[in-house]
Amino acid sequence: MSSTFGTAIKLSVFGQSHGESLGMVLDGLPAGETVDLDVLQAFMERRAPGRNAWSTKRKEPDVPVCRSGLFEGKTCGAPLMMEILNQNQRSGDYANLNLIPRPSHADYPASVKYGGFADYRGGGHFSGRITAAFCMAGGVCLQILKRRGIEIGAHILQIGNVKDRSFDPVSLQKEELLSPGQKPFPVLLDEKGIAMQNVIESARKDGDSIGGVVETAVLGLPVGLGEPLFGGIENVIASAVFGIGGVRGISFGEGFAAAEMRGSEHNDAYEIQEGKVKGKTNHAGGVLGGMATGMPLIFQTAFKPTPSISLEQESVSISKMSEEKLVISGRHDPCIVPRALPVTEAMTAIAIADLMCQAGLL
Amino acid sequence: MSSTFGTAIKLSVFGQSHGESLGMVLDGLPAGETVDLDVLQAFMERRAPGRNAWSTKRKEPDVPVCRSGLFEGKTCGAPLMMEILNQNQRSGDYANLNLIPRPSHADYPASVKYGGFADYRGGGHFSGRITAAFCMAGGVCLQILKRRGIEIGAHILQIGNVKDRSFDPVSLQKEELLSPGQKPFPVLLDEKGIAMQNVIESARKDGDSIGGVVETAVLGLPVGLGEPLFGGIENVIASAVFGIGGVRGISFGEGFAAAEMRGSEHNDAYEIQEGKVKGKTNHAGGVLGGMATGMPLIFQTAFKPTPSISLEQESVSISKMSEEKLVISGRHDPCIVPRALPVTEAMTAIAIADLMCQAGLL
Amino acid sequence: MSSTFGTAIKLSVFGQSHGESLGMVLDGLPAGETVDLDVLQAFMERRAPGRNAWSTKRKEPDVPVCRSGLFEGKTCGAPLMMEILNQNQRSGDYANLNLIPRPSHADYPASVKYGGFADYRGGGHFSGRITAAFCMAGGVCLQILKRRGIEIGAHILQIGNVKDRSFDPVSLQKEELLSPGQKPFPVLLDEKGIAMQNVIESARKDGDSIGGVVETAVLGLPVGLGEPLFGGIENVIASAVFGIGGVRGISFGEGFAAAEMRGSEHNDAYEIQEGKVKGKTNHAGGVLGGMATGMPLIFQTAFKPTPSISLEQESVSISKMSEEKLVISGRHDPCIVPRALPVTEAMTAIAIADLMCQAGLL
Amino acid sequence: MSSTFGTAIKLSVFGQSHGESLGMVLDGLPAGETVDLDVLQAFMERRAPGRNAWSTKRKEPDVPVCRSGLFEGKTCGAPLMMEILNQNQRSGDYANLNLIPRPSHADYPASVKYGGFADYRGGGHFSGRITAAFCMAGGVCLQILKRRGIEIGAHILQIGNVKDRSFDPVSLQKEELLSPGQKPFPVLLDEKGIAMQNVIESARKDGDSIGGVVETAVLGLPVGLGEPLFGGIENVIASAVFGIGGVRGISFGEGFAAAEMRGSEHNDAYEIQEGKVKGKTNHAGGVLGGMATGMPLIFQTAFKPTPSISLEQESVSISKMSEEKLVISGRHDPCIVPRALPVTEAMTAIAIADLMCQAGLL
Repeated sequence: MSSTFGTAIKLSVFGQSHGESLGMVLDGLPAGETVDLDVLQAFMERRAPGRNAWSTKRKEPDVPVCRSGLFEGKTCGAPLMMEILNQNQRSGDYANLNLIPRPSHADYPASVKYGGFADYRGGGHFSGRITAAFCMAGGVCLQILKRRGIEIGAHILQIGNVKDRSFDPVSLQKEELLSPGQKPFPVLLDEKGIAMQNVIESARKDGDSIGGVVETAVLGLPVGLGEPLFGGIENVIASAVFGIGGVRGISFGEGFAAAEMRGSEHNDAYEIQEGKVKGKTNHAGGVLGGMATGMPLIFQTAFKPTPSISLEQESVSISKMSEEKLVISGRHDPCIVPRALPVTEAMTAIAIADLMCQAGLL
Repeated sequence: MSSTFGTAIKLSVFGQSHGESLGMVLDGLPAGETVDLDVLQAFMERRAPGRNAWSTKRKEPDVPVCRSGLFEGKTCGAPLMMEILNQNQRSGDYANLNLIPRPSHADYPASVKYGGFADYRGGGHFSGRITAAFCMAGGVCLQILKRRGIEIGAHILQIGNVKDRSFDPVSLQKEELLSPGQKPFPVLLDEKGIAMQNVIESARKDGDSIGGVVETAVLGLPVGLGEPLFGGIENVIASAVFGIGGVRGISFGEGFAAAEMRGSEHNDAYEIQEGKVKGKTNHAGGVLGGMATGMPLIFQTAFKPTPSISLEQESVSISKMSEEKLVISGRHDPCIVPRALPVTEAMTAIAIADLMCQAGLL
Repeated sequence: MSSTFGTAIKLSVFGQSHGESLGMVLDGLPAGETVDLDVLQAFMERRAPGRNAWSTKRKEPDVPVCRSGLFEGKTCGAPLMMEILNQNQRSGDYANLNLIPRPSHADYPASVKYGGFADYRGGGHFSGRITAAFCMAGGVCLQILKRRGIEIGAHILQIGNVKDRSFDPVSLQKEELLSPGQKPFPVLLDEKGIAMQNVIESARKDGDSIGGVVETAVLGLPVGLGEPLFGGIENVIASAVFGIGGVRGISFGEGFAAAEMRGSEHNDAYEIQEGKVKGKTNHAGGVLGGMATGMPLIFQTAFKPTPSISLEQESVSISKMSEEKLVISGRHDPCIVPRALPVTEAMTAIAIADLMCQAGLL
Repeated sequence: MSSTFGTAIKLSVFGQSHGESLGMVLDGLPAGETVDLDVLQAFMERRAPGRNAWSTKRKEPDVPVCRSGLFEGKTCGAPLMMEILNQNQRSGDYANLNLIPRPSHADYPASVKYGGFADYRGGGHFSGRITAAFCMAGGVCLQILKRRGIEIGAHILQIGNVKDRSFDPVSLQKEELLSPGQKPFPVLLDEKGIAMQNVIESARKDGDSIGGVVETAVLGLPVGLGEPLFGGIENVIASAVFGIGGVRGISFGEGFAAAEMRGSEHNDAYEIQEGKVKGKTNHAGGVLGGMATGMPLIFQTAFKPTPSISLEQESVSISKMSEEKLVISGRHDPCIVPRALPVTEAMTAIAIADLMCQAGLL
């Protein structure tokens, strides 16, 4: 296991889906930072289950308790520790999974890696529930970055084959950036959001699930942020974001579309605007050579369809080494993308805070 | 700068495009490993410039000297150091770039980050030439992994809008895996390779460049390899591969196509084959929850078009803060993908060797 | 702050003296290890306050709760998290320390480093209470190492000018190693222990305190353990042990006495014993070039006298920038050495477990 | 092997005693720093062999070549790489050591750790010669720190039983700090230096060797520097300094003498001097809770006697598993302390530069 992340700011995440608590320790934050627990709670709730038709029926409060790191409401230099005590555990739903790995879940490789000792209940440490801990850490980083003029936002770019429009790579403003996160369904074009919800609902009715893509942007990064070659913005964000279950790809700026472009199309010409160097375009997505260019940082994260579906699936019994049918009876999101969106923002915030701290800017 | 990579095996890369030498130190390799310098040289030559119509005319020997780490031809526990002494330097070509950043290169953010002290000649440490050092390190790791039954190969999946077929995700064999690397133009379907070369040649004639995608696969990984949540196979490979200049995206298995799939399509059913648990399909690309499943590991890396093109471009003079035209006169590859392919294999090998070592398997 | 330790096994410690809880996350432990919570509790109690005349009167249960990392009593791959909820807080005792730093405590540099935001109550994160978290982590590592035949023990070598005899560096056996830890006052020679207790009692009566030295030994290390140059046994143990408040020095084998020795005295001749290479002597303390020699690993740790004394002291008011008298009214150990001893064992266990894991032996 | 050091500034050391070259890569230095190669060379020469009666007869130029990291004489963001090409190799002297480990050298554990593949010639990577690479890196850091008002110096505190006086812990000035390093024999009291040289000469005549202690001090550290609990000044300096062969102990301020002191003696009262908080005394050696107090940082490093002596010693043949006599015929320093002194300064400089960089102050 390596449930730690970061170089200058160090995150350590703990917890199992059906354990006593889950949470995180975040070490290396600057002292004197106000942590607004209400703002944090509002951020956490964007990830919380049970809010809509398309998310799991589990309704849990998910209220983190802060055990360490604050003094009189501000960070004090001690590591920040927050945890959520588990309350609504239904281990019974998962009892038979011990021996029959769920397709597309971590069950099978985890059972081999941990020699049969992994906690299989609800996926254990691999459960999507662990991302609540990511949101605690990331939610605090978001508050700290905001004070430095750095804003992070995201929207659902795609569900199934329905696509939202992209953030404007050149002239993205804070209002547009943050608006999707304030909607019940976080898109730029609400009509596309309705179509996406229909796709999700359709999958749900069929006992099935559907994948999607999140587009994330960051405004206000200082030019030159990032520690190339291997601590560049892409390296650090990618290694943070691949910590979220279900992520299958990440791309920056034009991403995979760059493969079909010529240099004369893809290169971003420079110009002078108000005495500053700016790109006329931003195919690069705000990052060159691992470093921020000053243009909006924009990247895409692809999520696979929720692996837990109600349809009968083919699997095997590891203990009996026999082929078996599997029906997963628990409650699951037909699409994880809406809830994964704030998690992506959170991991981005942690990655950026770490880079800022490495650069001596936090 | 953070030109170091790895946890258990630690890579430190040095050099500037026009500096005295470039190379690397690789610390933490197991002792007693034979390093076949001829095999390494052959691997290095797959990256070397000047071999074909579509690559730069610079013809350099690129023969690494080993200064440390070997004793009687075997690794001895001391860090492995190799370097290439620079011989064919033409700094004159780049003199005017000091003040006028090349679009889509690292010039501009680097000049800000390093306060005007960055070595601008040929991109300095950001030059593609630094990937020769990646190949030294990765070439040695490839030899060590091969002895453990782990093979890494890649092919060009796409140039412009021409696509090769993909590796067979379920039944990929070592012969197919390694065959593209033995061809002058590394593809599976040679007719597609000819079409790709036409696309490159067409861009070159226009003084332009073109992007592409590399598909990489790894056979023989032990089930459970990878250190989730943040040291998983995707996290580690992504943070290695984004160290290569020009990479815009990375995806595993179905990658971004997973966004359009339903769980019933994307989930990989298990079956028993010859007493072993196998996937009937491999949409996951051989990795679940950050851990190897035992199926072929398959991922895609998107490269942007070479930013250095012969066409006139718009840029700015940083010293004069004026808008300027820029013509880049040096010699450049119209497409970096063919040469980036062995570099991708190299970084994959370093990432996998590090994970193997972390797991106590090296 | 950098309250994290370790490379392959990663410790993250949290908590403030008067905060809600203190504890730790330990990531990277092997799966399938039984954690005997009763044995852990017994180990914790060797550090607990309030047990004797010479330790502070605070009597707290110090019972850690395990929130993550165990499944059916065994480690399961998920990070291990344990915490102690604080119950007996008396913040009032410390109220005036906000502005007047206690001599020889971290108060003054912490107030500068954290810009006045540090939690001054009881030393905050710098409190000796944080070592309870070290004991949780170390106590678990001790159990895991014991199963591999590695035993760690310590005794008080010196209090004031009273010295115990040293462990026998050549023929130390497990019984002798572990016996001091089973005594109320952990020494080899009980008459020396009585003299030491008199020294402590004498300091206590004077409202003063006294320093001392702990000698720690490790049996059963595999020859060659350690990752030189900078991850050697001395480097790793020193960087762990200096995390304990009050440590002023660490030395291995003959330590500072080696300065007065000649090579012919200090060099350990080799001989063959029962088909194995052994040292005839062990002036090296079981470690050469950062690697275990197979002889007992022996090192000494010097502790300063408890900085909190009842006598009036001279300090300053930081807010008023005036010189002030200070009387510390809380309850404090006149000598921290007896309670620091199991903490030293704990940090040694974490360091050794990390090295074992790095070497692929855990 | 773990021949890398540092968190924000990363050192990677390579080379074997009889290899092609030895050197280092130093990554993460600030850009725009002038590196005066003459000053560096002068620093290197303080460590160079062959200068006096008491050091080995090998006379090597030890002139480092800089291959990467400088542009127009200043650091440019690229990793700094320097190496010394080996010229005066006499492998023959060591041929028989393959099988017969030298007492008190790393030979035996290295042969086990590296499975017989370690380079035994002259100790390979464990040779004292590797410290030339430490001096390259540390010499550059010294120059960078000096520009920030941080000065590092050392003197020989003890050889055998002859002791120099200590640095004045309260009122140490830059002139006193740096003066020993400018003398042929680096002590404060020259008459003690003569007595020490007699002790060394006496050992040499007997074919023997002698140990000693170096005292190092640092002036100008910002109050609060250091990242407690595990990245504190003591932790980081200790883990750097134990990378030097032959170090047996390290202590700060009163060090082991603190064990005999009472709190009322050892505690440093504060006073106001010229509007600043100062200690009236400095028993702490300038560091509390891992953080700089603003008083001079002072620590002691104990070195064992040179293990290579001319006298016949008892060892074993590992291949034959028989007891053997060993006579070491090479040229060796009867006392490593004079040459180890600049190495200690160098490692201190690297550690402090890393901490400064972590704190955003470089």
